[in-house]
Amino acid sequence: MKPLKIASIPGDGIGQEVMPEGLRVLHAAAERFGIALDITPIEWASCDHYLKTGQMMPDDWKQQLQGMDAVYFGAVGWPATVPDHISLWGSLLKFRREFDQYINLRPVRLFEGVPCPLAGRKPGDIDFFVVRENTEGEYTNLGGKLYEGTEREIVIQESVFSRHGTDRVMKYAFELAQSRPRKKITVATKSNGIAISMPWWDGRADAMHAGYPELAMDKQHIDILCARFVLQPDRFDVVVASNLFGDILSDLGPACTGTIGLAPSGNLNPERKFPSLFEPVHGSAPDIFGKGIANPVAMIWSGAMMLQFLGHQEAHDAILRAIEATLRDGPRTPDLGGKASTAEVGAAIEAAV
Amino acid sequence: MKPLKIASIPGDGIGQEVMPEGLRVLHAAAERFGIALDITPIEWASCDHYLKTGQMMPDDWKQQLQGMDAVYFGAVGWPATVPDHISLWGSLLKFRREFDQYINLRPVRLFEGVPCPLAGRKPGDIDFFVVRENTEGEYTNLGGKLYEGTEREIVIQESVFSRHGTDRVMKYAFELAQSRPRKKITVATKSNGIAISMPWWDGRADAMHAGYPELAMDKQHIDILCARFVLQPDRFDVVVASNLFGDILSDLGPACTGTIGLAPSGNLNPERKFPSLFEPVHGSAPDIFGKGIANPVAMIWSGAMMLQFLGHQEAHDAILRAIEATLRDGPRTPDLGGKASTAEVGAAIEAAV
Ligand SMILES: CC(C)[C@H](C(=O)O)[C@@H](O)C(=O)O
Ligand SMILES: CC(C)[C@H](C(=O)O)[C@@H](O)C(=O)O
Repeated sequence: MKPLKIASIPGDGIGQEVMPEGLRVLHAAAERFGIALDITPIEWASCDHYLKTGQMMPDDWKQQLQGMDAVYFGAVGWPATVPDHISLWGSLLKFRREFDQYINLRPVRLFEGVPCPLAGRKPGDIDFFVVRENTEGEYTNLGGKLYEGTEREIVIQESVFSRHGTDRVMKYAFELAQSRPRKKITVATKSNGIAISMPWWDGRADAMHAGYPELAMDKQHIDILCARFVLQPDRFDVVVASNLFGDILSDLGPACTGTIGLAPSGNLNPERKFPSLFEPVHGSAPDIFGKGIANPVAMIWSGAMMLQFLGHQEAHDAILRAIEATLRDGPRTPDLGGKASTAEVGAAIEAAV
Repeated sequence: MKPLKIASIPGDGIGQEVMPEGLRVLHAAAERFGIALDITPIEWASCDHYLKTGQMMPDDWKQQLQGMDAVYFGAVGWPATVPDHISLWGSLLKFRREFDQYINLRPVRLFEGVPCPLAGRKPGDIDFFVVRENTEGEYTNLGGKLYEGTEREIVIQESVFSRHGTDRVMKYAFELAQSRPRKKITVATKSNGIAISMPWWDGRADAMHAGYPELAMDKQHIDILCARFVLQPDRFDVVVASNLFGDILSDLGPACTGTIGLAPSGNLNPERKFPSLFEPVHGSAPDIFGKGIANPVAMIWSGAMMLQFLGHQEAHDAILRAIEATLRDGPRTPDLGGKASTAEVGAAIEAAV
């Protein structure tokens, strides 16, 4: 069997601390399930690299990564030395766009052993996916300023939605919902306030729904939808959202399950024309970097999603069970009230795989 | 003393059911504190009116309201018969813009007797304000479509921020924070993804902060900010946000305190050049309309905010105490697990004033 070619990019801050744990679990699962791994460590796409070279990534970054099956990514950003618009737009957001990773897939799930901030919710109650559009929408640098620097200053920011870009994320989400037992799709919108793009977005959801008559579809305004994540998280199955709304929901969802320190994500190019990228939802966390206490679960879970995406469902399931078991009975990092180090948790999950 | 001239507009759905309770408490407080009220009931700005006349409001709506001190508003919208873009943009959003109600002020507070969806939070833990920009930003009908109706369709939606519009909401929020003991201001942003308007918005916050050196300012991206509303609601004091972000936060905040059925809001023109408008955050709630079980607290609390805004702090405080006492020991509507009717709760609060 051809080995899976994977670029591992730890990036900044705790990305560097959780990556080794992610890799160790990946290797354990590969060994158990007879998967060959070919891992290329990469030190760019980090603020360190930027401070040394003046750019976040080398000119030939695309060529270097183009042959890979996937990118396994830690975290990027170190605002104290490099402004976000350089670090993020120069790496992560570039990957998403230039590798056409148009799906940002983020599972939201409550585990046994993780204190839930919502009263009375039990594991099993919260188990859904946020499918976020990942290449267009509200994230643009289009627009500009009039009367710049004066009292009369006016700033225009443009969001851009294409039918192509919208339909493909809807399609992915509707298919995912179709594959799940509850057959429910929730469409995040704000068509009562954002008067051009969002009514149109609703229309694209209706058009897609016509092809999935079995699915129950629900369009919800982002304000009340956020409220319902807190009040009725059990009612969700698959939620599809624009770039910005998906960003919000996929931090809020994990927060409702205890900590965004556990949440993984896949930035997917489902056609595999380009490498997909798998990363924790958490960032580089400058405040805890260097202490060896970062929770590696999000990194490890992201690795499981990567194996699943590349066709290894069993390996994914084994890692998930190992995460579950460790969260329930194993060592815990301080964010979960324990005293264990990043490496201790990584080792426990590795052993359980 | 000159009477307070107030237009009462129940609007649609449960707006019609909670308005009488709001008015009864208003009258009780007025009597107790010797405030003269001159209340003009208005039946337009409702979907019924639209179905009868083909417009949400008469042509001379501005003249009819211009002399008023305030508008006391129930809820608007009845999507089953009138599309939101007609009902909302034809009334509520028109008031906000044409009466230059540029502040949307929304208190978030946890009461004794209201079950909190967040585990372990007690009354006193959650007590802050969301100050939302209310006239510009992401809520526009500016933009358009290219290749409309084809596969290549592209949709542009524009957000518009003016320095004037941004500075005045920042100023209001910074002043409010300055008047409170904790002296904390949180600025909602998304400058790492929305690349033109939000970095500029951050800059306006920095500029304003220069004039308030005593305040501790924190800029937080909307994704993590939403997560923190759930995880650390006790850390907020005054949160200032754009129109869209403020909309989201002011539904999410109340959700974290138990129910958005309790949350009030003020749409303020602080200079009192135009009437300000006070309304519950909840909508017309078609699902429970007609049963007489809507919770009137948001309507009543909105009335208290109105009195406060018009200079009657004591009357405000008395109503708040009456709400507090009733939530703690009084009758409850079904949303709070009780069996009481809208009118029973209204009467209890009236009696407690
Ligand atoms: C009804 C809708 C247009 C409105 C808004 O988004 O402003 C409402 O959600 C609110 O918060 O007052
Ligand atoms: C860092 C930031 C640009 C990014 C985003 O908003 O997409 C992050 O919040 C995420 O969710 O992956």
